[in-house]
Amino acid sequence: MDLRSRQEDYINLNPLQVGGRTSANTRLMVNSYLDGYAVCDQCSGALHQIPKPDIAGLTAKMANFLGADLVRFTHGVREAKYLLIKALLKKGDIIVVDGNAHYSTYLAAERVGVEVYSVPNSGYPEYKIKPSNYRKAIRKVKKKTGKMPKLLVLTQVDGQYGNLVDAKKIAQIAKEFKIPLLINSAYLAGRTKVNLKKIGANFIVASGHKSFGAPGTIGALGITKKWVDKLFYQSKNFSPKEVELLGCAARNAAIIGLAVAMETIEERIKLWPEELKKTNWLVEKLEALGEIKQLGEKPKQHDLVYLETPILDKIAKTKRKRGYFLAKELKKKGIIGIRPGLTKKIKFSTYGLTWPQVKYVYQAFKQILKEGEHGI
Amino acid sequence: MDLRSRQEDYINLNPLQVGGRTSANTRLMVNSYLDGYAVCDQCSGALHQIPKPDIAGLTAKMANFLGADLVRFTHGVREAKYLLIKALLKKGDIIVVDGNAHYSTYLAAERVGVEVYSVPNSGYPEYKIKPSNYRKAIRKVKKKTGKMPKLLVLTQVDGQYGNLVDAKKIAQIAKEFKIPLLINSAYLAGRTKVNLKKIGANFIVASGHKSFGAPGTIGALGITKKWVDKLFYQSKNFSPKEVELLGCAARNAAIIGLAVAMETIEERIKLWPEELKKTNWLVEKLEALGEIKQLGEKPKQHDLVYLETPILDKIAKTKRKRGYFLAKELKKKGIIGIRPGLTKKIKFSTYGLTWPQVKYVYQAFKQILKEGEHGI
Repeated sequence: MDLRSRQEDYINLNPLQVGGRTSANTRLMVNSYLDGYAVCDQCSGALHQIPKPDIAGLTAKMANFLGADLVRFTHGVREAKYLLIKALLKKGDIIVVDGNAHYSTYLAAERVGVEVYSVPNSGYPEYKIKPSNYRKAIRKVKKKTGKMPKLLVLTQVDGQYGNLVDAKKIAQIAKEFKIPLLINSAYLAGRTKVNLKKIGANFIVASGHKSFGAPGTIGALGITKKWVDKLFYQSKNFSPKEVELLGCAARNAAIIGLAVAMETIEERIKLWPEELKKTNWLVEKLEALGEIKQLGEKPKQHDLVYLETPILDKIAKTKRKRGYFLAKELKKKGIIGIRPGLTKKIKFSTYGLTWPQVKYVYQAFKQILKEGEHGI
Repeated sequence: MDLRSRQEDYINLNPLQVGGRTSANTRLMVNSYLDGYAVCDQCSGALHQIPKPDIAGLTAKMANFLGADLVRFTHGVREAKYLLIKALLKKGDIIVVDGNAHYSTYLAAERVGVEVYSVPNSGYPEYKIKPSNYRKAIRKVKKKTGKMPKLLVLTQVDGQYGNLVDAKKIAQIAKEFKIPLLINSAYLAGRTKVNLKKIGANFIVASGHKSFGAPGTIGALGITKKWVDKLFYQSKNFSPKEVELLGCAARNAAIIGLAVAMETIEERIKLWPEELKKTNWLVEKLEALGEIKQLGEKPKQHDLVYLETPILDKIAKTKRKRGYFLAKELKKKGIIGIRPGLTKKIKFSTYGLTWPQVKYVYQAFKQILKEGEHGI
């Protein structure tokens, strides 16, 4: 096996990975806790109570950061979503999710045998989720099945368009119908502060490796106190082991990485407004090159960018490498993370890049387009 | 947060951790893949198909090593056991497990609502599982509930006594009754070769961080082909995502560590007979010091040792630190991993230590006992 070319060697635009870049300090600490069950050196029965390394402190800090009464760590967001659906719902129950939800939300429901109704987005070109459409979807479920949905799920920022949805408005609707609401904040909490109680929802899931700069993979499930007994009840015979976590979930080095990342979270989130400036600057500049159109809401409120790029597709047709030319040309210029082969639409993120790097990315695209249009 | 004192600084006897010591090479490679979703750089839909890093190759290699038709990686053994029980059984079903099973086997069942009947061990001092008692347990379940158990589980080597059970004999009984059998080989496969098909069972779970020298946490679930569709069916709408894995489970750096560890697995397992010699040598020498008695089967067929140590308890009563004196004295001598506070019975393993280290451990115990008996 070969060493991976690290983030330091390239400008990585992969939107799945930009929020999971670890710092040198995080890697150092994780390395020291890498051996199997090293995090459990001083465990007395439950991961979230370990005093050294201070997982107990991390648990409290994360609950505070997310505005939750209680947090438990999971292997990732999909595992947290599954835990919740599995513990609260049963086969044949119905949930309502936004039309931009990640496939893993559907899989979590499918694994339990729960049916999913989705709230359609507004379609081309913005694909927005209108909060009031949750009301319509709930009524539609009731009319069609005679049953009320048992859970609402909102992808606060989706991974396709990077659209930000007003979670508070959906929480209002959830309260109207007395249906609990889960906020999937994988792409937002950690980039900025997201507060479950201020939103007025019941559950929040966050991702260490998607948005906190922690190594893969670790999720956090934050809940309000009303739900503690339903979700984190202890085993009949093996107290204090919590059944739905099978005792402890993230009993690994990723939680160490998250703990280190959380030490500087307040500095991290301060950079968020500047990240949005960089994103919108790049989108504007790229659109001005012509035959490039940003999909999703405008202006962007998140760093994840989805572009429709007929110009790149046109150039690809003239190239021996066809659609692969773009990734190849970018790599020559030290840029990676655009999915190879695709040129009709491309996805990227500049999260964590410096202004000079963002400007360099722009110049790289500009040059590739110019050369492409001249058949070079 | 402070760096952990690594294995290099102490002789670590913690039986949970000895099989999860990573090599420098493993740590180097893991470090390069630490960032969130780095392992997914070249993913086209499923972790077990990734060509670079070669997770596809690792998957095939592990299947071959475990004698399984198909392997999938999970976050750990408990997650693999849960996956299996959840996918195959339903609430109210019954499983039969050995009386030395780990708590996580019970939790996996409890999470599904499955009832557990256990095959009693032989009690003090050997606590052995007699294979024919599985037959009795199955008949007892049938008689008491009118139903047959839906699954048998055998902890091939248990984490309490380190007893090795003859899995083949239990596989014979499973076949007699046509009940599928799961082998929990967390503490054995990886230390030595364990072959599902040669045993004649249906499922095997193995632990990267318990026995393969991989970082925490990663499990492998190996199955025979008959069960593929029941366990690893694909999503209705998101093929090739496998529903019970929520798409992919171990999408992290631990799988990189396991891949590196597997590169030298053949050399690792060759050391197993010598490991057993070291274990039995130390047990004999310690018992000869008096008022120390090894629990579990004799001679030992595994490195995990459980000792009854009335002598240590006697000494503890004379110490200001009481039961904590032992861990403290050992630490002074550079030895860690014995659970602080306990002196009536102690657990340890010398797996991976050199002969001089094992002899040093013996001398350390001998000196502590001598000083203790003389009230020093």
